[in-house]
Amino acid sequence: MWLQYAVRRTTATPSSTILRTLRQPYARSFATKPRLHARNPTPFCRPVTSNPLVRRAFSSTPPRPAPFGLKARWERIPRKVRTVLKYTGYAAGSTVFGVFILTSGILLHDAFTYRKKAVDDMSQYVDGVPTAPLALNPELGGPKNLPILRSYLSDIEDPQQSRVSEKPRLVIVGGGWGAVGVLQTIKPEDYHVTVISPETYNTFTPLLPSAAVGTIMVRSLVEPLRKIVARLRGHVLNAKAVDLVMGERLVEVEVVSPAVSQGKRIYVPYDVLVIACGSTSASHGVKGLEHCFQLKTIGDAQRIRQRVISNFEAAALPTTSPEERKRLLSFVICGGGPTGVETAAEIYDLCQEDILTYYPKVCRKDVSITVIQGRDHILNTYSEAISRYAEEKFQREGVTVLTNARVASVHDDHVLFTSKDENGRTVEHRLPTNFVLWSTGIAMNPFTARVSSLLPNQMHRKAIEVDAHLRVKGAPVGEVYAIGDASTIETSIISHLLELVDRSDYDKHGKIDYREWQKMVHEIKKRFPMSDVHLQEVRELFDLYDSDSDNSLTLNELAVLLQELGNKITALPPTAQVAAQEGKYLGAKLHKRAKRAGGGRSARDVADEDVAGPFKYQHLGSLAYIGNAAVFDFPRYSLMGGLVAMYLWRCIYWSEQVSWRTRALLMMDWTVRGIWGRDLSVLRVTPERDLVAVPDPHSKVI
Amino acid sequence: MWLQYAVRRTTATPSSTILRTLRQPYARSFATKPRLHARNPTPFCRPVTSNPLVRRAFSSTPPRPAPFGLKARWERIPRKVRTVLKYTGYAAGSTVFGVFILTSGILLHDAFTYRKKAVDDMSQYVDGVPTAPLALNPELGGPKNLPILRSYLSDIEDPQQSRVSEKPRLVIVGGGWGAVGVLQTIKPEDYHVTVISPETYNTFTPLLPSAAVGTIMVRSLVEPLRKIVARLRGHVLNAKAVDLVMGERLVEVEVVSPAVSQGKRIYVPYDVLVIACGSTSASHGVKGLEHCFQLKTIGDAQRIRQRVISNFEAAALPTTSPEERKRLLSFVICGGGPTGVETAAEIYDLCQEDILTYYPKVCRKDVSITVIQGRDHILNTYSEAISRYAEEKFQREGVTVLTNARVASVHDDHVLFTSKDENGRTVEHRLPTNFVLWSTGIAMNPFTARVSSLLPNQMHRKAIEVDAHLRVKGAPVGEVYAIGDASTIETSIISHLLELVDRSDYDKHGKIDYREWQKMVHEIKKRFPMSDVHLQEVRELFDLYDSDSDNSLTLNELAVLLQELGNKITALPPTAQVAAQEGKYLGAKLHKRAKRAGGGRSARDVADEDVAGPFKYQHLGSLAYIGNAAVFDFPRYSLMGGLVAMYLWRCIYWSEQVSWRTRALLMMDWTVRGIWGRDLSVLRVTPERDLVAVPDPHSKVI
Repeated sequence: MWLQYAVRRTTATPSSTILRTLRQPYARSFATKPRLHARNPTPFCRPVTSNPLVRRAFSSTPPRPAPFGLKARWERIPRKVRTVLKYTGYAAGSTVFGVFILTSGILLHDAFTYRKKAVDDMSQYVDGVPTAPLALNPELGGPKNLPILRSYLSDIEDPQQSRVSEKPRLVIVGGGWGAVGVLQTIKPEDYHVTVISPETYNTFTPLLPSAAVGTIMVRSLVEPLRKIVARLRGHVLNAKAVDLVMGERLVEVEVVSPAVSQGKRIYVPYDVLVIACGSTSASHGVKGLEHCFQLKTIGDAQRIRQRVISNFEAAALPTTSPEERKRLLSFVICGGGPTGVETAAEIYDLCQEDILTYYPKVCRKDVSITVIQGRDHILNTYSEAISRYAEEKFQREGVTVLTNARVASVHDDHVLFTSKDENGRTVEHRLPTNFVLWSTGIAMNPFTARVSSLLPNQMHRKAIEVDAHLRVKGAPVGEVYAIGDASTIETSIISHLLELVDRSDYDKHGKIDYREWQKMVHEIKKRFPMSDVHLQEVRELFDLYDSDSDNSLTLNELAVLLQELGNKITALPPTAQVAAQEGKYLGAKLHKRAKRAGGGRSARDVADEDVAGPFKYQHLGSLAYIGNAAVFDFPRYSLMGGLVAMYLWRCIYWSEQVSWRTRALLMMDWTVRGIWGRDLSVLRVTPERDLVAVPDPHSKVI
Repeated sequence: MWLQYAVRRTTATPSSTILRTLRQPYARSFATKPRLHARNPTPFCRPVTSNPLVRRAFSSTPPRPAPFGLKARWERIPRKVRTVLKYTGYAAGSTVFGVFILTSGILLHDAFTYRKKAVDDMSQYVDGVPTAPLALNPELGGPKNLPILRSYLSDIEDPQQSRVSEKPRLVIVGGGWGAVGVLQTIKPEDYHVTVISPETYNTFTPLLPSAAVGTIMVRSLVEPLRKIVARLRGHVLNAKAVDLVMGERLVEVEVVSPAVSQGKRIYVPYDVLVIACGSTSASHGVKGLEHCFQLKTIGDAQRIRQRVISNFEAAALPTTSPEERKRLLSFVICGGGPTGVETAAEIYDLCQEDILTYYPKVCRKDVSITVIQGRDHILNTYSEAISRYAEEKFQREGVTVLTNARVASVHDDHVLFTSKDENGRTVEHRLPTNFVLWSTGIAMNPFTARVSSLLPNQMHRKAIEVDAHLRVKGAPVGEVYAIGDASTIETSIISHLLELVDRSDYDKHGKIDYREWQKMVHEIKKRFPMSDVHLQEVRELFDLYDSDSDNSLTLNELAVLLQELGNKITALPPTAQVAAQEGKYLGAKLHKRAKRAGGGRSARDVADEDVAGPFKYQHLGSLAYIGNAAVFDFPRYSLMGGLVAMYLWRCIYWSEQVSWRTRALLMMDWTVRGIWGRDLSVLRVTPERDLVAVPDPHSKVI
């Protein structure tokens, strides 16, 4: 109504009308603003006053009946002001209306979900749920005579679930990026899916540094695995994989629920196993890592957050000595990779934006943040420009970056590290601290180490070696896959020498001529897609390694060639991007295998090569947050900058979220941080079963 | 532009135009919807097709040049559809626009805060912050020769802080409802404020049951105390009060920060002390409470949430036996007050809305929720109608309510309780369970017990007794106050008998005549505002107790009267409402005292009676959530109902929040729950210092 009215009144009003109407009651509103009148003088000289009696006394003629009411008042406002008012009105109205529509929608939805669930669903289960007898009393078996999980509780509870339970069993160990990649790409009813994870949720790991200082909440980074597998009608086992019986296709798991007696073990049978349980931190032989934090899980982020704020709380106590205060506020980060750099940046942000406001300022003054990096530069896997940008930014902000420094040992209250002085001698330094973050690379966790030890041809020290189809080397073909940080794609072409010769040496002369070499290059590319870039110049390569120039490669010449070719291939980095791509590739392939097999149990017999090519990694770029700024390392160019880059960084991570729920929460967190700052509360972590300390009132001393 | 256009086109279009234009290219869009054409047959019979060539071939006349473009197409849409489209367009446009405006605002704000802090504030502190020498090296003193906190780190860091540090010292023990009530009502520069709290945040306790099952996040209930005291430029000590030296006006505190060696103690000097440290749970002499949860803090809510979800995770394991599953899913709540009832309702909600969807359905079937209540009814402090409503609702939903039952003992895996059978004999029952909540009333915590033991006239067993001015009985007047659950206002009028007689017996005859009785009633009302309702009938009371009808009350008659009058007064319940009102009353009074004293140290000399009347509790009503329904017990009427009542319940708690930050978070939580359900992740609580378990890669067995 009001909007329509406003639109109609945009027609020009002759300025004489404005002049005339200024004599009318409207003048009252302007009486306190004489300047407006000065610019629009009335034709008669009379005092400008809000008193109508005074006004009338001075008036030579009786006041003309003038338009009155809202409409007239609106017209009397100068046109420009009116336009501004109008559009402000539109904006405000639209905003209010939009928020109203959104809120109503939410409330309606809310009302709907509440009603539906509370009334309907319960009655359905009054008479009991059908449960498979084998699920209630699992048979024992396997080498250790443990219960074997052949049937699940919900397997026959409804027809669709029964259909799914007939499918081949896909067991995924882990619930991280790789696992979710698989879960998101296979289709419902392809497999009977089981996810084995000691955590009940998937974590959005790239934002852990933000969560570690409270920029975002940890709950915004987790999505329950049960919600992710619900689409596939799959199962989640809150357990830790501990061993593998490949002969009988069983995974041995240990239940981790605190409600169950510790150490309870079960066998989970599989037709296809995907190992996606990540890695742990590499120790590099450094002693005292029990005094360090790592940043791989939600629990780590929570502990770091508590430690950081607790340090500030302790530093804010007046009884803390100045030296102790400096030690409490010394934050040491070992490792200059993205995790280390982002954590340093987030701690710096926390100090600048919140500590300064709410803690004694001397606390802010005594803060020192130190990044200890073994290489020449921080972010050394990024482009040089980015390393330099980050180092310069840190230097400007007072964050100490120690390059070419090695941590010797970590102690309860200090870190010992060595660096070279100008004469090249190694000097040891002592850095007092109460917070050390260890983020210097990956190592195998107990389960991957166990799997690796079971297979004789697994030689890699940091992860399980897989072939280009992500199949674990040495395991029964098509049954065991490994992805993400848990795996590394083999780069040793030389170990395939004889096999390659066998397939390419048509004339069986024991020598490879150029035609056979072309065939072999084709074969190598198929098996080692990562060697692609190094095999562009086929002829040149052939001539280069044909040392006796007899226009053919002997086995020795070939061995040298393949060895050096293998060395050129760099393994894929242990990043979320690689894990997600591997997971998606594997999920798509497993779906194709299931489809090709017609959904029966024979899916295992479909060879990987028949349905998909080898895994090819498509590097989309790396990014890192460095404190109100962000850097991007795209394949063809680098980008670094302040606030705008930071928003781009946020956008990318926002779009990568697993669910719209976490997207909404993340947006809220950023907004709340923007308006009210970080939450500085320390929600102290205490063990699960806390005693209720109730003093006996009868023991009171009076 | 588009909106304007839409407005202009609302004029009626003759239906003939619609008929004619259907022959035109627009027909293409409708080709797949033949029903529309059936209702608007064209004058010529020709096939309806999207192919213009076919259409033209059947056309007897060449198609007339018709209006083309958006404008014409728009006009061809039937008018009703057009209206609907138009308003949908308005709504969508407004919503998008509104959200856009909001988002832009937020981003702009964000950009602004980021810039400001990061660049400006640091440079100010390059040369160090002025810090009082006494803050860096506190003097020792007091009975135990501990450091005395006479000066704080930030006391002289800027001029305003220096002014504040000259004011009388107000020390508040605790950070709950009472403390925040005081902090919100005193004015900046009234006092030099110190808050002593083992938690660094204030908790919105009434919503803890919701947080305990994940309906809302725990972070949405906390507000850092540092942010609350920032307005007053006060201080927060992350410590636990352990003792009091009233003679020297010192509170002995123990620092709780994990970064400081445990057990470190300090004296905090005060001019005015407010004890607002709450209470702990009453044991009622029941053994085995270490197996129970209580629900008083954020930590409790977190632990309960973990236990509840862990129980479901364990129950979802197929190796769990059916009996064990029933035990794991048996939730026992001891105490039928609001906390117990709300927790039972929230667990029921969780089962209905989320467990049913994401866990095997047999888990839902095996759930049992039991409320054990010692009295006749649950919610027995509410009106009878409300108790009945809640009991009926619980019965409908299958929540077991055991009234007149007493818990005998709590064990690791079961609860023993007794009830009377129909013959009045006491029978003992055994209830297997893995979750027991203990919420059966309050008891003194160690600090209040210590304070109470220091004062000879403190006789109450559950809290510190205070007079009507909230001054601790027996402590130096005007120096020590107690509020909230930590305190109880004295109801024993008889102990003031002699004093009252002394003040009212004008003729000193040792007897009270009616005139003197009137004077005494006035005095009693002033000292015991809660006796007001029982002192309405002054004459009748006088006559009733004047047993010898000599028109005067002897001391004996008076003693009987005052004793029975005192018994009628019920102590205020230990609720958030009482604590908040007491806090606000005390804050207002302390502000008046500071104002009257002119801001100097002499504020202590201003008597409470000179600036304020006694504390009067204004009961605004009680409310409770009982599972998609809520009950309200207002002073004059009761209200109970479903979804609408639930929203009212939410509105009331929403408006009671300490900050807009928590309001925003709470709104978000409710929305997220409404759309995506509860977060079922168990963020397992582990001790703060977790060892980094790094297996040595060199120990690998091959």
